[in-house]
Amino acid sequence: MPSVGTEGVKRGYVIPIGGAEEKIQHQDILKRFVEISSGSEARIAIIPTASELEDTGDNYVKLFKELGVAEAVSLNITTRSEAQVDSTIEVLNQATGIFITGGNQLRLSTILGGTPVAQAIRKLNAHGTHVAGTSAGAAIIPEHMIAGGEPGGTPKQGSVSLCPGLGLTNRLIIDQHFRQRDRLGRLMSAVAYNPFLIGLGLDEDTAAFIDPEGVLHVEGSGAITIVDPSDLEYSGIDRASHGDTISLIGMRVHVLTKGCTYIPETGAAAFPA
Amino acid sequence: MPSVGTEGVKRGYVIPIGGAEEKIQHQDILKRFVEISSGSEARIAIIPTASELEDTGDNYVKLFKELGVAEAVSLNITTRSEAQVDSTIEVLNQATGIFITGGNQLRLSTILGGTPVAQAIRKLNAHGTHVAGTSAGAAIIPEHMIAGGEPGGTPKQGSVSLCPGLGLTNRLIIDQHFRQRDRLGRLMSAVAYNPFLIGLGLDEDTAAFIDPEGVLHVEGSGAITIVDPSDLEYSGIDRASHGDTISLIGMRVHVLTKGCTYIPETGAAAFPA
Repeated sequence: MPSVGTEGVKRGYVIPIGGAEEKIQHQDILKRFVEISSGSEARIAIIPTASELEDTGDNYVKLFKELGVAEAVSLNITTRSEAQVDSTIEVLNQATGIFITGGNQLRLSTILGGTPVAQAIRKLNAHGTHVAGTSAGAAIIPEHMIAGGEPGGTPKQGSVSLCPGLGLTNRLIIDQHFRQRDRLGRLMSAVAYNPFLIGLGLDEDTAAFIDPEGVLHVEGSGAITIVDPSDLEYSGIDRASHGDTISLIGMRVHVLTKGCTYIPETGAAAFPA
Repeated sequence: MPSVGTEGVKRGYVIPIGGAEEKIQHQDILKRFVEISSGSEARIAIIPTASELEDTGDNYVKLFKELGVAEAVSLNITTRSEAQVDSTIEVLNQATGIFITGGNQLRLSTILGGTPVAQAIRKLNAHGTHVAGTSAGAAIIPEHMIAGGEPGGTPKQGSVSLCPGLGLTNRLIIDQHFRQRDRLGRLMSAVAYNPFLIGLGLDEDTAAFIDPEGVLHVEGSGAITIVDPSDLEYSGIDRASHGDTISLIGMRVHVLTKGCTYIPETGAAAFPA
């Protein structure tokens, strides 16, 4: 669930996207993000820090303008000192929506971690600004981020590494390109380390729109796989050596598609009526 | 710094210990823990879950009784279902101090994570119960725990793995047996992943008494090494391949001994007058 906001203040949506969201034909995910960010009055701030391609930010500026927003600005943050510039924070303060692009999530954590930009994103989201991130931009959203790992269907000791993320949600851990890169095993491993976590595996062109009340709505053409360990009876992670498969008893898994909802706080999943 | 407590309520001390605290001669650390937990009126609940030795809990019961506490009880929690037993929660509720023993920290995270016992420890500490942990018991204290890693003095990509801990502190990351097991490199790697973190390397027989106001007091015969990245200018973690040394520019390090203080919130370190 999203981190606790200030009492009486409605927090913004948190929107992790599994990467490769459709940008040309049916742009359901980007359209919905623009819509909740005030449509034709939306001001979108884009953070292209994860990407090492020079035109990533500009491409999203173009895309959001085509979708009819009032303003779209790409922020130039490639070093830790650039993550402290006042004019950059000002653009974030004025935004109705913040969009974090894909690339390498370790660039996001190591360049933004602990800086005024990271603090601003967290605070703004708690006070109503919507934050979306795709691929690496989705991974960085929670308190605990998947830094890297190995593909495969079964959980193995040492197959995933975690590090702190932005902290916009506290119990969720997010993996992306989920079906495309065969990542169920590493998501299960991450959750097995500490079953306080709830795993969210996002297929490409699929997004979790987590609303201010903490209800997750599935959007896009793929599925979201939920790995819920709240009834876990046994995990063998403390006995497994590096590379060993981890035995797990009682893990609950949901596969949710467009229109389904899930409430991380209660574990309740529902399909569209 | 410790997690935010309820307004107007004084939280308890958080006391990570670097392992192998002196138990026979000058028991400075255990004595100080008993003292702040109400001395002769102290009721200590011991969590021996990390250990696979049968007598770990009983040995601490004996030790605390010799130090003159009113009550010392070892809790039998070896499975996730035992971490939900009402009578166990009741012992925790009645305790003035909770002591988490050493062993394997993955047993702590995987057996306690997300259970009523973990929730109770977090809530009780926010409301005034003191919580100490030694070795594995220290590692589990923060929001981000070191699950494992490799020894060595320089930070290397892939030399450390993290997972969620109990969440009694949010920005600290704790390593133990620090000097004895040559762990500076892995602590620096952990902090480099996301420089939001502050690293605490605890030597054996050395403890950080973090008081309700967020001031850390060093106790014991060794040192605490603080790894503070708040002025970090550059980290090469996103460019390093597995096993490569990570370049870091601008990391600040303090080595603090008995009587020194440190305030994680402000970064201020002080030596005894």
